[in-house]
Amino acid sequence: MSRGQESATGDSVPPASAVVTPDDVEAAHDRLADVVHHTPLDGSTTIADRSGAARVDLKLENMQRTGSFKIRGAYNAMAQLPEDVRERGVVASSAGNHAQGVALAGQLLGIDTTIVVPEITPAAKIEATRGYGAEVVVEGEQYEGSYEYALELADEEGLEFVHPFDDPDIIAGQGTVGMEILDETPDVDTVLVSIGGGGLISGMATVLKAHDADVRVVGVQPEGAAHAKPSLEQDEIHRLAEVDTVAEGIADARLLEQTFAVIRERVDDVVSVSDRDLTVATTVLAERAKTVAETAGAAPVAALLSGAVDVDGEHVAAVVSGGNVDLTEHAEVTRSGLQELGRYVDLRLELRGWPTALTAVAEVVEETGAALDEVERANRRATDDPNRVPVTVGIAGSGPDHLQTVLESLDAHEAVTVVGSKSKL
Amino acid sequence: MSRGQESATGDSVPPASAVVTPDDVEAAHDRLADVVHHTPLDGSTTIADRSGAARVDLKLENMQRTGSFKIRGAYNAMAQLPEDVRERGVVASSAGNHAQGVALAGQLLGIDTTIVVPEITPAAKIEATRGYGAEVVVEGEQYEGSYEYALELADEEGLEFVHPFDDPDIIAGQGTVGMEILDETPDVDTVLVSIGGGGLISGMATVLKAHDADVRVVGVQPEGAAHAKPSLEQDEIHRLAEVDTVAEGIADARLLEQTFAVIRERVDDVVSVSDRDLTVATTVLAERAKTVAETAGAAPVAALLSGAVDVDGEHVAAVVSGGNVDLTEHAEVTRSGLQELGRYVDLRLELRGWPTALTAVAEVVEETGAALDEVERANRRATDDPNRVPVTVGIAGSGPDHLQTVLESLDAHEAVTVVGSKSKL
Repeated sequence: MSRGQESATGDSVPPASAVVTPDDVEAAHDRLADVVHHTPLDGSTTIADRSGAARVDLKLENMQRTGSFKIRGAYNAMAQLPEDVRERGVVASSAGNHAQGVALAGQLLGIDTTIVVPEITPAAKIEATRGYGAEVVVEGEQYEGSYEYALELADEEGLEFVHPFDDPDIIAGQGTVGMEILDETPDVDTVLVSIGGGGLISGMATVLKAHDADVRVVGVQPEGAAHAKPSLEQDEIHRLAEVDTVAEGIADARLLEQTFAVIRERVDDVVSVSDRDLTVATTVLAERAKTVAETAGAAPVAALLSGAVDVDGEHVAAVVSGGNVDLTEHAEVTRSGLQELGRYVDLRLELRGWPTALTAVAEVVEETGAALDEVERANRRATDDPNRVPVTVGIAGSGPDHLQTVLESLDAHEAVTVVGSKSKL
Repeated sequence: MSRGQESATGDSVPPASAVVTPDDVEAAHDRLADVVHHTPLDGSTTIADRSGAARVDLKLENMQRTGSFKIRGAYNAMAQLPEDVRERGVVASSAGNHAQGVALAGQLLGIDTTIVVPEITPAAKIEATRGYGAEVVVEGEQYEGSYEYALELADEEGLEFVHPFDDPDIIAGQGTVGMEILDETPDVDTVLVSIGGGGLISGMATVLKAHDADVRVVGVQPEGAAHAKPSLEQDEIHRLAEVDTVAEGIADARLLEQTFAVIRERVDDVVSVSDRDLTVATTVLAERAKTVAETAGAAPVAALLSGAVDVDGEHVAAVVSGGNVDLTEHAEVTRSGLQELGRYVDLRLELRGWPTALTAVAEVVEETGAALDEVERANRRATDDPNRVPVTVGIAGSGPDHLQTVLESLDAHEAVTVVGSKSKL
């Protein structure tokens, strides 16, 4: 497995066919047949309606073993290692899904795995990786430090380094997601895929374009990590000086040589979505598709809901690539998505007559059919009318119009004044 | 369609075969083929490991159209109505999944639907039902009042009343869930199904037992609505005086004549689970299976995780029957599930030296690999040492041992005293 090089221009990069071929993905598909889940392809009427598509199918790789597609590439690469390399073991660096993919692949293949994670990695993720039998080494303040240390370990202990994306066998393994989509819906028009380092989309585009050159393959990136579009435009790898996005799973700064080589030939377009779009998409996935996605995995749905890609009348497949998110974080993201959708509002009220006025609030909210989610009494401040008690309430409703009605009904009550709201009303 | 009668004993009830036959379910299966989703059957290694089962497959009816299995029975019943009845329309009473099932079935079949909902119904659920084209009438303080009013409307306006469960066509429709399970895993040993009124399990047991009399069919109820077990023991319908459970979707007080007739012959056992078990199961489904379930839909998984049913070495299918839950409520349930699992703790601290001591808290939590989810400064009280500031923090970790370490590390810091915790440490 090669270590990616960061300098490459259109002139020096290899042709895509020298990196990975449809046959490579087919071979990976056979290798993975009894190992990975053939994940569900779930139709979503809601997302189709809101995007103008004739049909939207969600490829639910968040329901894959280890909670993301990463097991596909890791297993495909590690299953092909020669016996002596397998006996020495492999090493990888990752704070996320790649760690669990490599760890499980090692467990299934009987290969010792060492995963280097940065210091910021939550204990829960370390536990999950150890749960698959990996040795976890904490080293490096950020990912870069872990990566360097993993390379050192590889050199010193003769371990094979498993790159998270810039490797033909990894790319071929991830491409099997595309084969499963084609198995079920060979007539798909557009396929949307998140891009971090570009491994998943490189493998998928390879089989999708071989199947039908007219299938449109579109990559999706967060605005705060949108390096692929400028790379295609300049026909040379563009490295971002800074990355800033809620979508940790695809918070990469650049493609590497092999993913760049494949993407420039086989991917039609790359669009970007805001962190707010990602939050809304994660919320819609939970509420309508009943599925728990990472914000990184929700990027293709964000592109559909925000209109970043025009899919009018088309049959679309959108990959939900992962679901490894702390539930406390997921709860925070969906709360913020509901606010963005005008379905939840935090109101700052002033009540005349405490605590009696609180019953007025409860009554008004109930009468309007909204739900009183949180109530918090704040301290009076010097600027407040001393006869009024500040209270913050969180209210859930069916939409902006409904919550506007609730707000007005509260404000109309003699004992209540609405002094502020945090929402999209 | 009959209206259920509440008095029935073992002597007077009809034989199960007079209510519903495997052929009825087969016919429903054909009728529904192009209408409902064949929902995924998703293997869960985590739940298998924790329950001692050799294999656990989750039948994800929360991913069904309208978010629950209810569309199956509603469509099967309404598709068989004679033309003159279809022209007049149907009426149903429900604050939940049955409402959406009837509404969508009406939209698909071109039948006008009127749904009577109780006053307590949140605006969001009313919107969802209206979204399928139903006329929604708010009437009755509780469900019973809506039910009575729906019967009145049926009489006065010549509408057909669609019962939520006590009807052979409804039961046959729900039974198609069992056929889909058998299609994919004919060798299943035990099938676990939630019981509210008993429609789903009646239909499923009918096909499962016809396929193989040795397949074990086990019903699951919340402790606060556990009416089916005493009904089987006394061989007469047992009506609970009071129902108290977090699982609204199955908060019924009794079976009715036809579901009782089928369940007494075809269901092997009924077990019960606590509200805490339901909360943990909902959390595990979100975290590991990446799926959003109602607490009612998580009951079979709760039975597996709590040991309420012995499935040692077996191949088990557990139905996740619905996922219609407000995301704010789901977030609250999973937070409480994480606390129950010792993965989240609320600590009341006293800090010496505000605000500097707060950095000590942040540092200790980060060093131990835990996540600082919430920080709230409380007011000093008369009983507090005036030199100390009370602060409440919410901390997420990998398990009870980990959080115990975090707690001890905080307490060991000179500026911090842990004065209380709300958790299972």
